[in-house]
Amino acid sequence: MKAKVYVTLKPGVLDPQGKAIHHSVELLGFENIRDLRQGKYFEIAFDAELPEADARQAAENIAGNVLANPVIEDYRVEIVS
Amino acid sequence: MKAKVYVTLKPGVLDPQGKAIHHSVELLGFENIRDLRQGKYFEIAFDAELPEADARQAAENIAGNVLANPVIEDYRVEIVS
Repeated sequence: MKAKVYVTLKPGVLDPQGKAIHHSVELLGFENIRDLRQGKYFEIAFDAELPEADARQAAENIAGNVLANPVIEDYRVEIVS
Repeated sequence: MKAKVYVTLKPGVLDPQGKAIHHSVELLGFENIRDLRQGKYFEIAFDAELPEADARQAAENIAGNVLANPVIEDYRVEIVS
């Protein structure tokens, strides 16, 4: 049982790292890019015998309390078996 | 037209940041976690009139040349409209 957690900055929040990458990518000749934003990605492997509902609950808690800052970031949890 | 790029460390590569998060999460009382690995996540917004094939090609190039270090990292590109 595995959980994938995606953490992204909320839409209004400035993303200087993404801006810097956007600029570098343009200097390298890639055009047609309107915006580039950076987020974080986590893979959590749970013990195999843990039920899916418990894994989802644990992943949601970990994402909201540890991995993301809910003031400026959104997160999304996906469970894969 | 939007591309999502997921960058993860290759399976054999040590992930000290993931290990540190794993340890913190355990200290906070979350059990049943076998492994936790950190990756990176990027959202690239292309100009709306760019055809999907070109967007995919550009996103693959950007991911392989700029966003990921192909020696130690794998990447995956997903196009959403």
